[in-house]
Amino acid sequence: MPQLSQRSVMMPASPIRKLVPFAVAAKKKGIKVYHLNIGQPDIHTPKEGLDALKNIDRKVLEYSPTPGIQSYRDKLVGYYKRFNINLTPDNIFVTCGGSEAVMFAYQACLNPGDEVIIPEPAYANYMGFACETGVVVRTITTHIEDGFALPPAEEFEKLITPRTRAIMICNPNNPTGTLYTNDELYKLRDIVKKHDLFLFADEVYREFCYRDEPYLSCMCLEGIEQNVVMIDSVSKRYSECGIRIGALITRNVDIMAAVNKLGQARLSPPLIGQIVAEASLDAPKQYHQEVYDEYIARRNCLVEGLNKIPGVFTPMPNGAFYTMVKLPIEDSDDFCRWCLEEFSYEGETVMMAPATGFYATPGAGKDQVRMAYVLKIEDLKRALIILEKALEAYNAR
Amino acid sequence: MPQLSQRSVMMPASPIRKLVPFAVAAKKKGIKVYHLNIGQPDIHTPKEGLDALKNIDRKVLEYSPTPGIQSYRDKLVGYYKRFNINLTPDNIFVTCGGSEAVMFAYQACLNPGDEVIIPEPAYANYMGFACETGVVVRTITTHIEDGFALPPAEEFEKLITPRTRAIMICNPNNPTGTLYTNDELYKLRDIVKKHDLFLFADEVYREFCYRDEPYLSCMCLEGIEQNVVMIDSVSKRYSECGIRIGALITRNVDIMAAVNKLGQARLSPPLIGQIVAEASLDAPKQYHQEVYDEYIARRNCLVEGLNKIPGVFTPMPNGAFYTMVKLPIEDSDDFCRWCLEEFSYEGETVMMAPATGFYATPGAGKDQVRMAYVLKIEDLKRALIILEKALEAYNAR
Repeated sequence: MPQLSQRSVMMPASPIRKLVPFAVAAKKKGIKVYHLNIGQPDIHTPKEGLDALKNIDRKVLEYSPTPGIQSYRDKLVGYYKRFNINLTPDNIFVTCGGSEAVMFAYQACLNPGDEVIIPEPAYANYMGFACETGVVVRTITTHIEDGFALPPAEEFEKLITPRTRAIMICNPNNPTGTLYTNDELYKLRDIVKKHDLFLFADEVYREFCYRDEPYLSCMCLEGIEQNVVMIDSVSKRYSECGIRIGALITRNVDIMAAVNKLGQARLSPPLIGQIVAEASLDAPKQYHQEVYDEYIARRNCLVEGLNKIPGVFTPMPNGAFYTMVKLPIEDSDDFCRWCLEEFSYEGETVMMAPATGFYATPGAGKDQVRMAYVLKIEDLKRALIILEKALEAYNAR
Repeated sequence: MPQLSQRSVMMPASPIRKLVPFAVAAKKKGIKVYHLNIGQPDIHTPKEGLDALKNIDRKVLEYSPTPGIQSYRDKLVGYYKRFNINLTPDNIFVTCGGSEAVMFAYQACLNPGDEVIIPEPAYANYMGFACETGVVVRTITTHIEDGFALPPAEEFEKLITPRTRAIMICNPNNPTGTLYTNDELYKLRDIVKKHDLFLFADEVYREFCYRDEPYLSCMCLEGIEQNVVMIDSVSKRYSECGIRIGALITRNVDIMAAVNKLGQARLSPPLIGQIVAEASLDAPKQYHQEVYDEYIARRNCLVEGLNKIPGVFTPMPNGAFYTMVKLPIEDSDDFCRWCLEEFSYEGETVMMAPATGFYATPGAGKDQVRMAYVLKIEDLKRALIILEKALEAYNAR
C-alpha cells in the first residue's frame, strides 16, 4: 500500500474531539455528561433565519456566486457599519465557515515555510490549517496570571525572522475569553506596520464583549489597511454553527483577487446557509440583548463557582464564551479522560477540553483546561459540583 | 504592502468563470446569452429534497459530526449498493462538495512535490487544488479523434517518476463526456497495482452513463482496494450544486484516519445540505429515468447539430453532460470572448468554455471548446443556429 503524506501524519487531532470516544462510552453506560468542552451554543438560532429555511421556494438548488450572494454581501456592509467597520461589498468574500477563511488567508498570503506568529494558547485549528498549508506557526506564550494579556512588542520582535510574514490574533479570544484593550491593539498595529506583516484578525466573537466600551476591530486600525485580513463567521453570532457560513474580509484588492481564484476552485459557498445568514441579519436587537445577558450571567456563575473550588483559578474573561481554568492537577489530558472513563458522581460527569491542544509549546497547559459556558446556568451549577467532586476523587486516588 | 504567496500568483483562474465579466456586459446591453459554458443543470431538484428543507424543525442549527450525519452515511451504503459498490458507513466521509474531497485526497496522500498523473483535457480545478497543495500535475494527453479514450499503459509509464504517487481519473469524464470501457479500467488497475500508486476516481457523473452496460466503479476493481479513493458529490445527481455536499470514499483506514483529522480542522460539513441530500436518496426511480431520458435527448440533439455545422466535430459522448467540440478556429479563448463582446445574432449569443483551461500542455485545445448540455432542447437548437452564424461571422472578419 502506498504511504500517506507527511502532512497527514503531522496533522494534529482536534483537542476537543479526541475525547469523544470516551464520552460516547460513558453515555452508553448511562452516565450523563455535561459538555463544557465544545463551543456549540445551546442558544436558539434567530427565528428570522429558521423562517427563511421554510420559505425557500426554488426548483433548483443551484451554485451561488463564488464570492457569495450579492444581496447578502450588500447587507453585510450595513452589519459591519454598526461596529464602525466601513466596507464595500467587494471587501467581503463569503466562505464555508470561518475555517475556510483562515485557510484562504494562509494560502493567499503565505508560502510553505513562511512563519506566522500566534499568541498561545490559541484556537487549535490555526495549527491544523498551518500543517495543511505548510505554514510554520511560531507561538508567543500568554499567561493565565495576567488574564492572557497580549505580550509587549519586544516579545513579538524576538520571534520575528526573515520568514515571518504574518501575525494572527483572535479577539475576543478563543480559548481564553480575553478581549484585548485598545492600547494592546495599537501596539500590535505598530509592530505590523514596522515589519510590514499581514495581520490576520479572527473576530468571530465580536458580539460577545463584556467590557463597557465599543469594540475595536483590527479593520479600524489606521495605517495598516492593506495588511489586515479579518476572519468572520455567523456560527457563534446566531448559533448557526451547522450552516457553515463565514467571511474573509480585506481592503487589499490583491489578496481579494487571490482569494477569488482559491474560491473559484471550490465553486461556491453553501447556498442555503447564505439564505439563512442573510435573513438572520434581521434578528431584532432584543435577540442579541437576550443572548448577551444570558452569557454574562453564565460567565459570572461559572467563573465565581470555579474560583471557589480549592486550588482552582480562572481569570474573569471579557469576551467570547470560554475561559481557561487552572486545576490542581498535573496532567489535564489524563484528568479529562479519567472524568469520562473512570469517574461519575450520582450518575453524572463533566467533559472538558485539555489545554495542551491549544499550546504549541511542549508541556505548556498541562494543568489547564478550556471550558465553554454554553450550557444553562442550572447545568453549569451542577457541572461545578461534579468538577469539585472529581478533583477530590482524582487527587485522592 | 507585504507580498502575496507564490501559490496565489500561480493559481489558475477558472476557465469557465474568466469570461463571466463579458457575459455580464453582454446581458447589460440586452443580449440574451445561452449558457453552454457551465455545468449548472436546469433540471429540478427532487421534491423529496426540497420538502426536507421546509420540514426542518430545529431550534439550533448546530454542528453536524465531522464525517457527516450518521443516518445519511448509513443510507448512502444502500445507494452505493445499487452500483455494486459494497461499503460500510465508515468508508464514507461526507465533504463540502466534491471539491473538498479532491482537496482532502491530495492532502492526505501527496506531499508537496509529489506527482499525480491526470489524463487531459481534465476538470480544471484538479490543477487548481494541486497548486494550492503543492502537488505536481503531469498530464497525459487524450485525443478528440478517438473520443478521448484512455491512453495505453506504455503512455502512462512514460510519465512515471520516483515522485509519482497517484493517478486521477474522472469517469464519466468532465470535460469530455467519455465513459471509460471496462477494459480501459482493468488496464488502469494493472498500472496502479504494478507501481503501487493511489487511484483517485472522481465518479460524480455515474448516474449519467449512456452505454448499455452496468457502470464499473473503480471501487470494484479487484486487487487495488487499498489504493482507491473515490470522489463523489450530489451536485449533478440531484441538481443540488448549491448545497455543497460530496463525499470521500475509501476502504483504506489509514487514509480515512488522515481525512478525519483534516475534517476536524474545518469542524463539519454543511448540516442543511446533508438533510436535503439524505432526503433526496428517496427520490423515486422515475425521477432518475426522466432526467436520464432528457439528457440523452439533449445529447443527441447537440451532437448531431454540431456535426452538421461545417468544420465542426464532436465525438458522441457516453456519459456526463459535456462534450468537447473542435471548431474551425485557431484561438478558442478569443472566439469565446468575441461571441460575448462583439457578436450577437438577432439579439442573442452563446457562451462556451474555451478548452485551453482544461489542458496543462501549453497550446493544446486552442481549437476546442467545452459545451454542457444542461439547457432545454429548444434552447440547444437555438444555440446551434447562433453558433453557426458566429463561426461564419468570426471567420469572415
